Amino acid sequence: MNHAGRQCRLKTVLEQNRLDALLVSHLPNIRYISGFTGSAGVLLATESAILLFTDGRYKEQARTEVVGARVVIGRKSALTAAGEWLNAHRKKLGIRVAGIEAQHLRVAERDQLRKVLRSNLRLREAPPLIERMRMVKDDEEIDNLRCAVRLGASLFDVALKMIRPGTKEIEVAAEMEYEARKAGGEGMSFETIVAAGPRSALPHGRASNAAIPAAGFVVCDFGIILAGYCSDMTRTVHVSKPNADAEKMYDAVREAQQAAIDRVRPGVSVGEVDHAARKVLTARGFGKYFTHSTGHGVGLEIHEPPRVARGQPDLLRSGMVITIEPGAYVSGGGGVRIEDMVVVTEGGCEVLTPTSKELVIL
Amino acid sequence: MNHAGRQCRLKTVLEQNRLDALLVSHLPNIRYISGFTGSAGVLLATESAILLFTDGRYKEQARTEVVGARVVIGRKSALTAAGEWLNAHRKKLGIRVAGIEAQHLRVAERDQLRKVLRSNLRLREAPPLIERMRMVKDDEEIDNLRCAVRLGASLFDVALKMIRPGTKEIEVAAEMEYEARKAGGEGMSFETIVAAGPRSALPHGRASNAAIPAAGFVVCDFGIILAGYCSDMTRTVHVSKPNADAEKMYDAVREAQQAAIDRVRPGVSVGEVDHAARKVLTARGFGKYFTHSTGHGVGLEIHEPPRVARGQPDLLRSGMVITIEPGAYVSGGGGVRIEDMVVVTEGGCEVLTPTSKELVIL
Repeated sequence: MNHAGRQCRLKTVLEQNRLDALLVSHLPNIRYISGFTGSAGVLLATESAILLFTDGRYKEQARTEVVGARVVIGRKSALTAAGEWLNAHRKKLGIRVAGIEAQHLRVAERDQLRKVLRSNLRLREAPPLIERMRMVKDDEEIDNLRCAVRLGASLFDVALKMIRPGTKEIEVAAEMEYEARKAGGEGMSFETIVAAGPRSALPHGRASNAAIPAAGFVVCDFGIILAGYCSDMTRTVHVSKPNADAEKMYDAVREAQQAAIDRVRPGVSVGEVDHAARKVLTARGFGKYFTHSTGHGVGLEIHEPPRVARGQPDLLRSGMVITIEPGAYVSGGGGVRIEDMVVVTEGGCEVLTPTSKELVIL
Repeated sequence: MNHAGRQCRLKTVLEQNRLDALLVSHLPNIRYISGFTGSAGVLLATESAILLFTDGRYKEQARTEVVGARVVIGRKSALTAAGEWLNAHRKKLGIRVAGIEAQHLRVAERDQLRKVLRSNLRLREAPPLIERMRMVKDDEEIDNLRCAVRLGASLFDVALKMIRPGTKEIEVAAEMEYEARKAGGEGMSFETIVAAGPRSALPHGRASNAAIPAAGFVVCDFGIILAGYCSDMTRTVHVSKPNADAEKMYDAVREAQQAAIDRVRPGVSVGEVDHAARKVLTARGFGKYFTHSTGHGVGLEIHEPPRVARGQPDLLRSGMVITIEPGAYVSGGGGVRIEDMVVVTEGGCEVLTPTSKELVIL
């Protein structure tokens, strides 16, 4: 992995933000910068050094995984240990202002840090600096995401085999997750959604004990984690022949999704991408049934910046990876969502998800 | 569920802590108080009313699940919506001091809240009030935990069938998780640990692509979520006949685990329980290889208060459910951990985990 490059860029980012140090407490950010995948630790970046503070449980793991950072194993909380290190090295290194990750650090953790730190060291709430770095993926990350997407997409075939009237939603999810695990997935990116019949109108219909009815939509939204990177895709199928209304809804969502994909290119705002999908659904009479945003960034986390939502100003850049997932949900009726992952390229975008979007009738 | 009782107790707790309101942002706490299981929302408790703020995605779900609280669906962030509600009702309800969950609320979220709130409304960092309520489980919760533990324990049989030299750790985990899902588990409580041979010396050895060696310990630490409640157990087996050193280590951990269980009763501090395990391991020469704490509370979350750790003063109370999981890890050699869940009873404790702790040799 390109940890050295990331660490070098982080130091530039600190300088640009007039921070002498940054306390990184968000685990995906720690992983991105140092390679450490443990579930407890704090990374401290200064101009001259990067240190990872963690505890005895992760001694061996940290020494194997961490690249370009000194590992400090301690008995105290990692945050306290990092604060004490700052006290001890503050003078020599000229550290006056240390940033904290305000979007992640808990109020009580900041209190704890303040208690540890000498008064002549100032804490400043930093914006999501590392998240901004992570928005644009490097080649290796895109390769990782490609592999994750491919494995994730293969699970849709499992779903197609399982979805039959009478089968429980949770049984469909169980088979998909089993295949994912056998194929080397570290886990699912989020709780698998299999929402059948009236439950398809729930945008977040986690697979339940409900049986798949004899007719209606089934929304399948799922993703896997592979080598730390998340996949995310949604397909909606129909059990038995859909009526004209159902076909109309499916076609509207599909057209909206394509319109949003067609809008993706460097320099376009994510708000415009959202608008492209919304415009189609509104024109087809489904505008008010599209109750969420069009997508989100995805990488080491299933939800990352940018939010592809109404009015958001962030501009797309080559190397960003986002989901495009408009939907329509008619309470008491049914719902449709179609979702791909796309990577922004110089000339527009490449759809990573290889799966057809023709309506599958089971 | 006993939501009405919990809501009534919460109001008393607010009064005792001189809070006119409490903004609850931690999802397991929201679930405990209101029944809502969605992944975005804020609960606002005042003396006269409880409200749940969430967004359009959870409209149907909130109306189905939430008991005893008014559901407010909005387009803004739930926190902003709750803040605006406080502004509007502050005067009428005489709300001057609102608590925040300092251990969970992010620094940036508090900033956001401060921007929304009128200046005559004061935010106070509240201690973990609902976590303290949750420490003692009611009968229904203990029943739920009992069911979760039973299902969790059944997965050990799957592990025993799968563990053979040459099988990958991840394959063992895949089969266990598949069975859990088919049996109705909502997911695993944490990433399944299957750590074989030298990897058994990693206290947190998530199942990897490594093959199980011809001889050595295999630590299996796993749990499932059922009806929202988590199970957690560890058993360590040995592939091929263990040598005298391995047997000595296993026996020491087993004895330490029993000593800690024997110490559990109302009025005893969790530090004393930890000490009981540590004392045995130290006497047997494994003290320095026991690098973590003895256990933790478990319920809606896999790690809850109290921490059963060195010197911790919390006193056990009837109805608390904790894990007892001492271990010993010799780097380059191997590791052993044995873990049960126990519920504190008037007379001592009941071990919930039904599984034998005789060393299984495969």
